[in-house]
Amino acid sequence: MANILILGAGVMGSALTVPAADNGHQVTLAATPLDGEILAALEADPAGHPRLGAPLPASVRFVDAQSLTAADGARADLVVVGVASPGIEWAADTVARLQPRATVGLVTKGLVDAPGAVPLTYAAAFPQMLAERGVRPSAFVGIGGPCIARELAERRPTAVVYASNDDGAPAAMKTLLQTAYYRVSLSGDPVGVEACAALKNFFTIGVSAMLGRHTRGGEPVKNPVAAAFQQAVDEMALLVPWLGGQRDTAFGLAGVGDLHVTVGGGRNSRLGRHIGEGMTLAAALAGPMAGETVEGVDVGRILRPHLKEAFANGDLPRDALVLADALIDAIAVGAGLDYDAAA
Amino acid sequence: MANILILGAGVMGSALTVPAADNGHQVTLAATPLDGEILAALEADPAGHPRLGAPLPASVRFVDAQSLTAADGARADLVVVGVASPGIEWAADTVARLQPRATVGLVTKGLVDAPGAVPLTYAAAFPQMLAERGVRPSAFVGIGGPCIARELAERRPTAVVYASNDDGAPAAMKTLLQTAYYRVSLSGDPVGVEACAALKNFFTIGVSAMLGRHTRGGEPVKNPVAAAFQQAVDEMALLVPWLGGQRDTAFGLAGVGDLHVTVGGGRNSRLGRHIGEGMTLAAALAGPMAGETVEGVDVGRILRPHLKEAFANGDLPRDALVLADALIDAIAVGAGLDYDAAA
Repeated sequence: MANILILGAGVMGSALTVPAADNGHQVTLAATPLDGEILAALEADPAGHPRLGAPLPASVRFVDAQSLTAADGARADLVVVGVASPGIEWAADTVARLQPRATVGLVTKGLVDAPGAVPLTYAAAFPQMLAERGVRPSAFVGIGGPCIARELAERRPTAVVYASNDDGAPAAMKTLLQTAYYRVSLSGDPVGVEACAALKNFFTIGVSAMLGRHTRGGEPVKNPVAAAFQQAVDEMALLVPWLGGQRDTAFGLAGVGDLHVTVGGGRNSRLGRHIGEGMTLAAALAGPMAGETVEGVDVGRILRPHLKEAFANGDLPRDALVLADALIDAIAVGAGLDYDAAA
Repeated sequence: MANILILGAGVMGSALTVPAADNGHQVTLAATPLDGEILAALEADPAGHPRLGAPLPASVRFVDAQSLTAADGARADLVVVGVASPGIEWAADTVARLQPRATVGLVTKGLVDAPGAVPLTYAAAFPQMLAERGVRPSAFVGIGGPCIARELAERRPTAVVYASNDDGAPAAMKTLLQTAYYRVSLSGDPVGVEACAALKNFFTIGVSAMLGRHTRGGEPVKNPVAAAFQQAVDEMALLVPWLGGQRDTAFGLAGVGDLHVTVGGGRNSRLGRHIGEGMTLAAALAGPMAGETVEGVDVGRILRPHLKEAFANGDLPRDALVLADALIDAIAVGAGLDYDAAA
């Protein structure tokens, strides 16, 4: 039995407690300062998570992360950071305070702006954020692949990928967390996996726009979304190496697989459908999606100046990145999407 | 204006008349002996195709292929074979009779058994069938990619790929057929494109089984189908080189793109859903799908002895081809599918 500490009681951090607890480990789910309502609900009832839609195992311990000490950090055999991207600085501060000696896994998805260089994936940025705070975990493992949190918590068959530069860490983490329904593949390309994790949210907006734009009797037709799905895969395969990862990672679970599930539902997909139906991005974000975090939009904002520069200096072929180019422009000015699947 | 001859008045051959006629060409749609009812309906009304669900352009000429002569063959600037796989011998006989000097394009999808060797794709088999009949067209072009015929005929945005060993032929054919809504990419890997065209029907059965097996309130959940979609892509990337094509072709329009659209609907997908719901393959084919041609089943029958031999002699890694292995066994004995997305 291992001691597993998960930081962040949002849907994904919470869902990961299910395979961890099913494997008999002592699991602690630590709520961030923004998770107060969730913590109260879970303390009252492990089935009470207000957004997950599935019960958590009775053996999971729910705590306020502020109450954790370095002793908790020292005791952990694995720490998983499960916050949303706006919480990444809080997560770095908290890990630094806990000083864990064990592997740190990360499910947070996003890019970090790096003036004068290409954007950093969390595979590069998060270990650096920890190093700046004086802490070096034994290894960093990025988590990617098609995993809707509620479905994992329902123990639906789910395939994910753990990626690390450290040879042994992902395999050890797999041993701790893999179950019959939660299957873990391994990768040696954490930068590529983290790049895909960020990019698929961004591209989902454009692929899902085809679901709103091309319909028959209210149902999406299929050729346009398949064409745009392929375009997104082709463009990920260009952008992943540009961000420092391996091209083939775009064709695996973190790329193709996660894009598949993300187009199937969620906030990025809903935003895409709205703009496919003719709404501007600004109108969708101010109207039907008001108050929601759409991570693909943040990724597009960070990408834009870097992509424009790479197009200008020939580092990236603009003609082969038409979907990305249309998306960053739509995001920048809040416009509609000037892209169609066969344009 | 060019003279374009399309053999086979099924849904795909018929749909291709739309971009061809929209580009101002003289288009002849030639019905096979099995297309008698379609020919009569189209002669009465170009909107009368009994299975397409969309009208054909008024300029298209409808004929019985038996009435065509070598003069028609000599006049054609492009011949496209659009029959279903059971009609491939008829198509070879007809092309041989017409003796065209122009490029021959092929949308037919399937594999040809080759005792003692790996199965042949049509990119290898069809030119060979023509050569055996004493005819050598100027070039052969395989057509792949995500294209539901009805949607093409409705002029929905559609992206396809033309593949040939001949440098100029696919580009010339693209010039004849590409429109604003029908976008053509080029490939130098006809064997890979034809391998994908056959394999995606086969794998669709297994991916779509997850749509029937894992549901909530009658709607499919998403993690299992995404995991199986990725598994199918990974396995296509192993089988395409084994069949003589290039691995990367599996990650493009003929592979990922066409798999996406095929899982979205059609006979292979419906068969998959039935077996996902717990029906045996034999029961599905004898019951709800009686009388329908399911091309992925034929592909599986041809693949089986060759795959088993390749597993036995180490040419292919059975552990990495679990979906293909489960599918060929289910098809061979008409059983249910012994595969789950995270098994």
